[in-house]
Amino acid sequence: MSHLIEEGDYVLLYLDHRRTYLVRIEKERSFHTHKGFIQLESLIGKQYGTIVKSSLDVEFVGLKPLLRDYVFKSMRKTQIIYPKDAALIVMFSGIGPGSCVVEAGTGTGALTTALAHYVRPDGKVYSYETKEDFLLTAKRNLERAGLIDFVELKNKDATVSIDESNIDSVVLDLATPWLVVPHAYDALKLSGTIVSFSPTIDQVVKTVEALIENSFVKAETVECLQRGMQIRRGRTRPHTLMTGHTGYITFACKAAKT
Amino acid sequence: MSHLIEEGDYVLLYLDHRRTYLVRIEKERSFHTHKGFIQLESLIGKQYGTIVKSSLDVEFVGLKPLLRDYVFKSMRKTQIIYPKDAALIVMFSGIGPGSCVVEAGTGTGALTTALAHYVRPDGKVYSYETKEDFLLTAKRNLERAGLIDFVELKNKDATVSIDESNIDSVVLDLATPWLVVPHAYDALKLSGTIVSFSPTIDQVVKTVEALIENSFVKAETVECLQRGMQIRRGRTRPHTLMTGHTGYITFACKAAKT
Amino acid sequence: MSHLIEEGDYVLLYLDHRRTYLVRIEKERSFHTHKGFIQLESLIGKQYGTIVKSSLDVEFVGLKPLLRDYVFKSMRKTQIIYPKDAALIVMFSGIGPGSCVVEAGTGTGALTTALAHYVRPDGKVYSYETKEDFLLTAKRNLERAGLIDFVELKNKDATVSIDESNIDSVVLDLATPWLVVPHAYDALKLSGTIVSFSPTIDQVVKTVEALIENSFVKAETVECLQRGMQIRRGRTRPHTLMTGHTGYITFACKAAKT
Amino acid sequence: MSHLIEEGDYVLLYLDHRRTYLVRIEKERSFHTHKGFIQLESLIGKQYGTIVKSSLDVEFVGLKPLLRDYVFKSMRKTQIIYPKDAALIVMFSGIGPGSCVVEAGTGTGALTTALAHYVRPDGKVYSYETKEDFLLTAKRNLERAGLIDFVELKNKDATVSIDESNIDSVVLDLATPWLVVPHAYDALKLSGTIVSFSPTIDQVVKTVEALIENSFVKAETVECLQRGMQIRRGRTRPHTLMTGHTGYITFACKAAKT
Repeated sequence: MSHLIEEGDYVLLYLDHRRTYLVRIEKERSFHTHKGFIQLESLIGKQYGTIVKSSLDVEFVGLKPLLRDYVFKSMRKTQIIYPKDAALIVMFSGIGPGSCVVEAGTGTGALTTALAHYVRPDGKVYSYETKEDFLLTAKRNLERAGLIDFVELKNKDATVSIDESNIDSVVLDLATPWLVVPHAYDALKLSGTIVSFSPTIDQVVKTVEALIENSFVKAETVECLQRGMQIRRGRTRPHTLMTGHTGYITFACKAAKT
Repeated sequence: MSHLIEEGDYVLLYLDHRRTYLVRIEKERSFHTHKGFIQLESLIGKQYGTIVKSSLDVEFVGLKPLLRDYVFKSMRKTQIIYPKDAALIVMFSGIGPGSCVVEAGTGTGALTTALAHYVRPDGKVYSYETKEDFLLTAKRNLERAGLIDFVELKNKDATVSIDESNIDSVVLDLATPWLVVPHAYDALKLSGTIVSFSPTIDQVVKTVEALIENSFVKAETVECLQRGMQIRRGRTRPHTLMTGHTGYITFACKAAKT
Repeated sequence: MSHLIEEGDYVLLYLDHRRTYLVRIEKERSFHTHKGFIQLESLIGKQYGTIVKSSLDVEFVGLKPLLRDYVFKSMRKTQIIYPKDAALIVMFSGIGPGSCVVEAGTGTGALTTALAHYVRPDGKVYSYETKEDFLLTAKRNLERAGLIDFVELKNKDATVSIDESNIDSVVLDLATPWLVVPHAYDALKLSGTIVSFSPTIDQVVKTVEALIENSFVKAETVECLQRGMQIRRGRTRPHTLMTGHTGYITFACKAAKT
Repeated sequence: MSHLIEEGDYVLLYLDHRRTYLVRIEKERSFHTHKGFIQLESLIGKQYGTIVKSSLDVEFVGLKPLLRDYVFKSMRKTQIIYPKDAALIVMFSGIGPGSCVVEAGTGTGALTTALAHYVRPDGKVYSYETKEDFLLTAKRNLERAGLIDFVELKNKDATVSIDESNIDSVVLDLATPWLVVPHAYDALKLSGTIVSFSPTIDQVVKTVEALIENSFVKAETVECLQRGMQIRRGRTRPHTLMTGHTGYITFACKAAKT
């Protein structure tokens, strides 16, 4: 039996491909669009996937938000991570249900959300962030996604030290990842993974050098270009607009020191 | 405490970036390379990440295989899936620990392995494949990755029917995905997701048309280009060789019929 | 001796990478920007490459416009062609000084400008366009680039017929290139080339089928993705924004009928 | 009237998309393939585009070689340039019929061939190369393409000095382009262009810094990814294999020193 929509749940209101809205269901609240307003209360007790009509009789679908929606629709105080990069970081890290992960830095929690989603129900994400206001935003985003219980947000600087040990993976998304590499080595179990995400080549070069100096092996760096397609018989083509660059993903494994 | 290597475990022997070998640890078995042979028994009782020397005194690292290693090093009877695509398919599907997934077709189980990894410990993957020999290979690959308990391999044709219902996500990786779309609609819970992976444009067009006809919404198609980088101070550049195309990923959500 | 700037010449006023302006030098005309205005007359008698100051004492460089500037800054009544595509079309066509080329359609003359630039001083571009207003715009653009003498603009429909024969190359940039293919075959000399530019896959498939049916050989289709880089020590990275798709370029050669 | 094939001419024998052969027509010479041999003499007096049968009755088309064939089929003693890059370099340089160009270094003359093709009939390419054996190869390649008269090959080091002045464009394709930048400034006319092609990021950063220090403006760097498509109704898709990187193209214009 599917879960029914309750007060306090989030719903992704879908109008068309460009217009989706992540809204919280509250009594006596209405959501206004240029296609009329929707009484959010009317969704309570319905199944996700239900069609709801606006005051102008336009149909919306009340979809259940997916991980991707939470990651992509994080409040954008900082540069958020793209789902394609979150997906590759998760895959490269090798994490899954039960994994213990250290993340630095939290930012607004977009990548944290993805990590927490996959380590459920027994794993944990320890996420370091020096800026308090980011942590507040991250906390709200993680609560919204129902994942706060799997994360410990830490107002600490991972370039100084990491408290944890015997960690499965360290994930870096901060300006100076190379400074965290020695601490990541200590925190990781042998054969554990490190994944770093950086927009500039210069960050990548410094990070790879730090990895090699610190007995990491199997270092590799990739970038991932995602291109959307317009699929319509007779008019099929890639979209004109494309994000040309988000960042480079660097991966390595901890080896024993010789 | 980290898990120690036991007989029967798999180890990824790492020599350098181009030479890694996924081997099963057995007593009295040695693994031969052009850099000498390694007594696999010598790894028993060691931690993953340990350094082991070959008979020619060359160092290998005995890494713990990650999901990616299992996915990428599947026995290649069919076209396997690339980790980048497996990563995006998992992310787009929205699945995670506890999800129930239908996959068609199994192939040699590369994508099945990724799906099973993420639905642990309470979820399940029901994987359809018409060719018996593929199922045998897939079974071996899933056993090797320790994930067979989370998969039900079914020697059935998903283009004819799907047995399950109330499914979270249907993942299609077969030649005629559009033929599965109506059965996927029935199998999915409302707001459930469908993700299809196809190499040709023609398959994508037919699949998107079938999705629209069958009350799926939010259909989108992307392709993902992964490019490797050579990171070395003074000689940093993208690699010359690149996989130019693997396939298109199409995603949609089940809406209620109006 | 370099040519000095005269009244009536075009100058590319360069402020910074994002702000360049193609202006015609006229007496008593000033050019206004948010950085002050420039008395265009003051450039007369100067060399291209000279630095000129605005009324707010901001430096501009008065560069000589290049082919690329004329192609890219064509008046945009229709979709213009990107320099990268114009460059590849020219290279694939094999044309050069002295070539005779048929183009369909002219549009606003952006690609025509590139073709005319390279066939000088003895070649000719015969450019077909059904819409008269496009031809007027194209004429102005070609005059501005000083290339009108190498082009014959024809208000005719190349899908109906092509007047010329013994042509070196036919270049197609219109909605239905496949309809021109039989006429292109007749117009071309043996071993002549045809190059077609189309945004959609469906156009490409129809065009390639028409090429094969009409005794063209060596058909190939490519797309070209251009990515800009931000080069700054410590912050080097690809630009975030990128044009994800412009069109596919299809190329073939005329063989004798068997 | 088309030019007829004569002894000494080059012909591109086309069998299928993957098999084309650039051959010189000589009397009493036969060209052997796995599809039988072709008496080259039989092509003399024929038109380009003619179909010729091998001894095994397989059809070949005798095409007229295009610039691209000469560029791509240069004898590969060094890394050759790809036609896509040659095309962009030519476009960015702004050169055309009549231009005077300095190139450093010549290599085996692939890019030189492209430059010479477009500066005909009144322009000139002055090409610098320190290695004598490269110059010999370049000379043969340029003769083969019929373009040697438009090139002056110079066994000199452009990082030491450039003899010419009042040049329209300087094109750099050597390991240390930044060392040529000051000499390029002196050689160029005001508003003249410089284009540099380099495989590594580090070369690009040094070159851009040298450009800025030497009063060049409008510096930009791009890379170009070309992807081939398989166009067949029902099986249309990008090719699996792709060249992921050739090099970065950097462009700038000479401004007056302030």
